[in-house]
Amino acid sequence: MKKYNFKEGDLIEVTTSTEKSQGILMQSPSQNLVIKLNNGYNLSINKNDIKSIKLLQKYKQQKEKKVSQIKFNKNLPTISILHTGGTIASKVDYKTGAVSAKFSPQDLLQIFPELQNTANIKSKLIFQIFSEDMEPKHWIILAKEILKEIKNKINGIIITHGTDTLAYTSAALSFMLQDLNIPILLVGAQRSSDRGSSDAALNLICATHFITKTNFTGVAVCMHSSIEDNYCYIHPGTKVKKLHSSRRDAFKTINDKPYAKAYPDGKIEYLRDYPKKDSSKKLDIKIGFDQKVAILKARPGLNIKELEFYEKNKYKGLILEGTGLGHLPLYTLKILQRMNKKGIFLVMTPQTIFGHINLNVYSRGRELQNVGIISGEDMLAETAYVKLGWLLANYPKNQIRKLITENLCGEINKRILPDEYIEE
Amino acid sequence: MKKYNFKEGDLIEVTTSTEKSQGILMQSPSQNLVIKLNNGYNLSINKNDIKSIKLLQKYKQQKEKKVSQIKFNKNLPTISILHTGGTIASKVDYKTGAVSAKFSPQDLLQIFPELQNTANIKSKLIFQIFSEDMEPKHWIILAKEILKEIKNKINGIIITHGTDTLAYTSAALSFMLQDLNIPILLVGAQRSSDRGSSDAALNLICATHFITKTNFTGVAVCMHSSIEDNYCYIHPGTKVKKLHSSRRDAFKTINDKPYAKAYPDGKIEYLRDYPKKDSSKKLDIKIGFDQKVAILKARPGLNIKELEFYEKNKYKGLILEGTGLGHLPLYTLKILQRMNKKGIFLVMTPQTIFGHINLNVYSRGRELQNVGIISGEDMLAETAYVKLGWLLANYPKNQIRKLITENLCGEINKRILPDEYIEE
Repeated sequence: MKKYNFKEGDLIEVTTSTEKSQGILMQSPSQNLVIKLNNGYNLSINKNDIKSIKLLQKYKQQKEKKVSQIKFNKNLPTISILHTGGTIASKVDYKTGAVSAKFSPQDLLQIFPELQNTANIKSKLIFQIFSEDMEPKHWIILAKEILKEIKNKINGIIITHGTDTLAYTSAALSFMLQDLNIPILLVGAQRSSDRGSSDAALNLICATHFITKTNFTGVAVCMHSSIEDNYCYIHPGTKVKKLHSSRRDAFKTINDKPYAKAYPDGKIEYLRDYPKKDSSKKLDIKIGFDQKVAILKARPGLNIKELEFYEKNKYKGLILEGTGLGHLPLYTLKILQRMNKKGIFLVMTPQTIFGHINLNVYSRGRELQNVGIISGEDMLAETAYVKLGWLLANYPKNQIRKLITENLCGEINKRILPDEYIEE
Repeated sequence: MKKYNFKEGDLIEVTTSTEKSQGILMQSPSQNLVIKLNNGYNLSINKNDIKSIKLLQKYKQQKEKKVSQIKFNKNLPTISILHTGGTIASKVDYKTGAVSAKFSPQDLLQIFPELQNTANIKSKLIFQIFSEDMEPKHWIILAKEILKEIKNKINGIIITHGTDTLAYTSAALSFMLQDLNIPILLVGAQRSSDRGSSDAALNLICATHFITKTNFTGVAVCMHSSIEDNYCYIHPGTKVKKLHSSRRDAFKTINDKPYAKAYPDGKIEYLRDYPKKDSSKKLDIKIGFDQKVAILKARPGLNIKELEFYEKNKYKGLILEGTGLGHLPLYTLKILQRMNKKGIFLVMTPQTIFGHINLNVYSRGRELQNVGIISGEDMLAETAYVKLGWLLANYPKNQIRKLITENLCGEINKRILPDEYIEE
């Protein structure tokens, strides 16, 4: 293999036996050369396939424009932005190939100068991690940081978050901090801010405007509604799922309606009833998560040993992604009964994503009820997982079976009865 | 608890402290009374809550009308229907509460007399099981039964199947029987045939017409396209997922287009290119499935021990439902590398359902590639699971890594490039 002396950040043209590609040289693993193409994506080329490389332009570090010191405007509402990392409010550093977070108020307003006219923006870095590395312990730290900010009499909080596990975090915060009296919006981006097609700006601007104008309270997710840049949806924190790996409108409200449409000019269109500001409300704080909970998806060929693993390792709860209306194979009934008798909470959610569990239609459903399976109603498996781990850390064991099927903060859609799910 | 002397099948009115309900008494578990409501759903009432029960009408066994002996019409095409059980072509027996399958040609034509004018119908009962009880061994028996029928010079095969795991079976048959020269359609029903809203008739009639008129070959799924009774979709066997627990239009083609619309009057509207009849094609039979394969979904809080379970139990392959473009937490890299070195195939599919895995965009993706993770491209986790178990049973180990990312029978959509998944 030849040695090349180009530097990261250089614009180069790589020729292989099959194609020519132009792009910016990125930090590359040993066997491959990675270049960032003009469309923003990275191309990985095996070094052995490279015939030649031509330098098109040397890397030049660009000087960043500084915005002037921000002045507090007492006529504007105040929003606190808590950063956790991810693609939003980040740029690809072509020198190191790493994504660098922009988190000071100055940095942020430099990327999104529009925000300055809408609200006083406070900004704090909580984490700088990819959201696939978010763990329950991070949810707890984040919940505590939110509580600190709430004491500062702010009008609302924006949490910037990687999109991979954003919906898990929004569910966790929804359960941990109930009866909030301000809006808390999780905002992500599917494309980094230096990409022409970035969704970061619209998501952040809609969230900022929405907070300054709404009387909505609680945890929600503000993300692109479509591949047009027209408006965002305000998704309920416990009913939202990332349903596409790459589209800007990847986030969808499942088995319910979004709370509202939020437009970049500040217009709000409410789509249904929502929790509202109310001075008599008292914040209900229950922070904690028991990690002895897991998710297991049913499939033809599911092995009894996979269930036994959770029994042997003293798990306290298991979310079962059943087939259809909430079914599992006949041969699992015996071990499920034993697990239930040991006090392991077994909660059924639909692997169909959409629709409601109904254990009363078919005989298998009734058999599963008889061995102790709890219906997860129309909860997302992810939300049921977060809820069960949270219940186990905050409630006595004898209340959990009842609470899991109760709607605590929008996670179960009680406005639609199970039978009505048949055809909406 | 009181004792009641009503018989199963009786129409009764049950009064509790909160409500009055009328329905047909079904076979009931010890602590509950189950009645079938007029809307077709079962209601389960705790016997301790019952205040009184009134008999409205005694059960009368209905005599079934017999259709006359079916004559073979040599001018009509011949279709073989293989029954496996499930809600389609079944009735609720109000005496036992069980679903009874109707599987002789006479029985079937009694329910669907329209079929007689379209094709000669042969009918065979292969299984009579709920589809949640289908196991890989059943796929193998079914594939062998299909081979028997093919020898009888039929025009096509309809497989009636419970909807819970119908998509797993359609994927399995797609891999096991490649380059088929007839259409094989899996047909299910979300509502049993004695329900006013049953989808059984439309699904079966559209499938029958489609087979008699099309030059399509291969395995596909014929199911309701919408909640209207206007037409069915012919979904590709490896790209279809049950995406709602109860709606009649629950089945959707994921990351691709359905092959066609099939109307009940025989009209066909093709939506894209499809495999066609061709006398030079040679049926490629590879029947078998290695059950040492499983599915594990990533989540915040995923425990290393869950991965170790599959390593310790000598699994040969694992489908990982990663977050976003195909990510897992940093702390899993070490064990994944060890599993890969032991020869365990680790295939990444998106837990977002929609979209494509892309391990070249973020550094985590590149790290995962470096420890041996294989991209499942845009395959459904369910299809990737079936494919990997099938590959392990039919190919030498050194070909599997290459074959998993190759499109063998429509399971990977090569007509859309990964980057184009961004916004379709």
